Amino acid sequence: MIYLDNAATTKPSKNAVDAMMSVGEMFGNPSSLHGLGLAAEKAIKEAKAQIASKLNCSPNCIYFTSGGTEANNTIIFGVANARKKWGTHLVTSKIEHPSVLEAFKRLEREGFSVTYLDADNDGRVSISDIKNAVTDKTTLISIMYVNNETGVIQPVDMIKDEISDIAKNAFIHSDCVQAFGKINVNVKKMKLDFATISAHKIHAFKGVGAMYISDTRYVSPLIYGGEQQSGLRPGTENVGGILAFGAAAKDIKTDTQKFKALREHFKNRLINEVPDIVINGSDEFNSNTVLNVSFLGIKAEILLHALEAKGVYVSTGSACSSHKPQPSHVLVAMGKNDKEVGGAVRFSFSYATSILELDEAVEIIKSETAMIRRFM
Amino acid sequence: MIYLDNAATTKPSKNAVDAMMSVGEMFGNPSSLHGLGLAAEKAIKEAKAQIASKLNCSPNCIYFTSGGTEANNTIIFGVANARKKWGTHLVTSKIEHPSVLEAFKRLEREGFSVTYLDADNDGRVSISDIKNAVTDKTTLISIMYVNNETGVIQPVDMIKDEISDIAKNAFIHSDCVQAFGKINVNVKKMKLDFATISAHKIHAFKGVGAMYISDTRYVSPLIYGGEQQSGLRPGTENVGGILAFGAAAKDIKTDTQKFKALREHFKNRLINEVPDIVINGSDEFNSNTVLNVSFLGIKAEILLHALEAKGVYVSTGSACSSHKPQPSHVLVAMGKNDKEVGGAVRFSFSYATSILELDEAVEIIKSETAMIRRFM
Repeated sequence: MIYLDNAATTKPSKNAVDAMMSVGEMFGNPSSLHGLGLAAEKAIKEAKAQIASKLNCSPNCIYFTSGGTEANNTIIFGVANARKKWGTHLVTSKIEHPSVLEAFKRLEREGFSVTYLDADNDGRVSISDIKNAVTDKTTLISIMYVNNETGVIQPVDMIKDEISDIAKNAFIHSDCVQAFGKINVNVKKMKLDFATISAHKIHAFKGVGAMYISDTRYVSPLIYGGEQQSGLRPGTENVGGILAFGAAAKDIKTDTQKFKALREHFKNRLINEVPDIVINGSDEFNSNTVLNVSFLGIKAEILLHALEAKGVYVSTGSACSSHKPQPSHVLVAMGKNDKEVGGAVRFSFSYATSILELDEAVEIIKSETAMIRRFM
Repeated sequence: MIYLDNAATTKPSKNAVDAMMSVGEMFGNPSSLHGLGLAAEKAIKEAKAQIASKLNCSPNCIYFTSGGTEANNTIIFGVANARKKWGTHLVTSKIEHPSVLEAFKRLEREGFSVTYLDADNDGRVSISDIKNAVTDKTTLISIMYVNNETGVIQPVDMIKDEISDIAKNAFIHSDCVQAFGKINVNVKKMKLDFATISAHKIHAFKGVGAMYISDTRYVSPLIYGGEQQSGLRPGTENVGGILAFGAAAKDIKTDTQKFKALREHFKNRLINEVPDIVINGSDEFNSNTVLNVSFLGIKAEILLHALEAKGVYVSTGSACSSHKPQPSHVLVAMGKNDKEVGGAVRFSFSYATSILELDEAVEIIKSETAMIRRFM
């Protein structure tokens, strides 16, 4: 198996599995007053510290959720509603994940006004567009750090300085799900107020995400209940999932050079050896963990299954919307034509991906695309 | 260790652990189109069927959440908002879990009118109170099936027949978190429209719950995003947690006679051998997995730590509110006096609890209460 779908999900690492398994013995409810509960609570604190140190923030700013989707929803609804008095204008982009876009669409139905920014042909939202969109009534700007379909890095770290004169009441959120573990995410240096990360994208388990929240006063909860997580996100904590998330975060080594070498090698071989392809998304601003390729004249789903039959796992668009048969909203927002959109396949790497695997994948892609093209 | 805090959380069973571990290999994203994704999707379907068969409903009516808290919130907010046109009156009880009570409190702030029913001295909400509370503007009645602090079974199965003439637009939800796995929960026979269950209360893992939803048209989502779970609850599914939940559900054997024998034996020994105690909650209507005892004149938290030092794990009130130093809202609603509330300890059993353990616990309780009373 050559698994090139790491942007959809990753295999849990040995350390993550071991951490999950520790709850077999340490199974107490973190809210219980006895030692079993306290042990679970203490372990959660440690996981929080492991994650916080990778984000360069205080452990007190980390709040766990059931995943990236809930985290994005909590921050977007939570800030929009808590800051209504200051304004009802919000800014995001057309290339965000559905859990961001659909949250904003719901806010529009509730009376908020939302500006959805375009991306350029390279898949990048422009900082001047962001600057032009904000007003003194803007309360939230939500732009992802790395796009999930193209790997393109967005100019998130420039937003605060650019907009602070105009939009004094605007907070900045970044969906960092596809950035965390791949490139350095330093919430202080990026001047973020809120960020979202997810465990199963960094070799931990599905069912856990986290929010970086600089100040809880600026967010209303999405879920109400007990006193867990200061009441901002109640419910018994997913102890095993959180410990595994902490262990996986601790293991993060963002090896930019390695990823760049992998992507360049793979890209150059495809360009040289497979006819009629287009590479989608900026090379200059890229996490280098994703290569999005349009195989012109080929239906991406057909190629996906052909590659799968040879043991190569890839995706068309993102996993989260792959069950609905509609063109990638990301590639459409980048101005790609129908042929480019219809034939787009995403290859995504992890720390375990090797040049050898990519070379094997190239040979299989060469023969499968040739085969499909012969019969179409 | 004698673990008598199973209402707070339970130890994952071997089958649940094995199911969780299967995602080490089967780690695909259920939304991915390739075989790894499909395998995960298929496994989730099987877990759904295992749970549905224990609830006597169609697998299509099961939707997974991050736990009981999110499930209660989704149903309460979802039904209240989706059915606003039909009315804005809601009915619940004062002895519900915080994830129910706090959701209703938020709805009150949004303009809904909520009736909070009392419980009687035995810890039971009366069916005639429910009947008297509803009107033709009532859209939701939410009453838990088994109370988490006392084990008292509520007359949930009688609601539909009693109210259907008066409250034609009212749906019935029951928080069955403390009932599922302990007593039979048959959503069809109980004539429920919605129900909530949780994995970590039945020897699976924390971080997973499920909703029984008879018809999705009557609920708005709480979380917005991708197409997972028909868009009613998007976000990548917690595959490992769901598989473990299914495995634990499959293993459920509601051994009513065993639980009754355990509780009766334990209760009678305490009554006969420990002075100045009061048993809280009905014996007649009880899941028999909980014994709530007030040790008059003793501060419950002191007894909890004394018992813990001897290896007996119990709780004061419920775990979800144990970190806030305020009296149990359940015992207060039952009309218990300060002494009864202040000295209340919850002992809760699982299928693994033995008479032998309870006998040992009785001896420890005898000596520790005597010791504490000597020094107070």
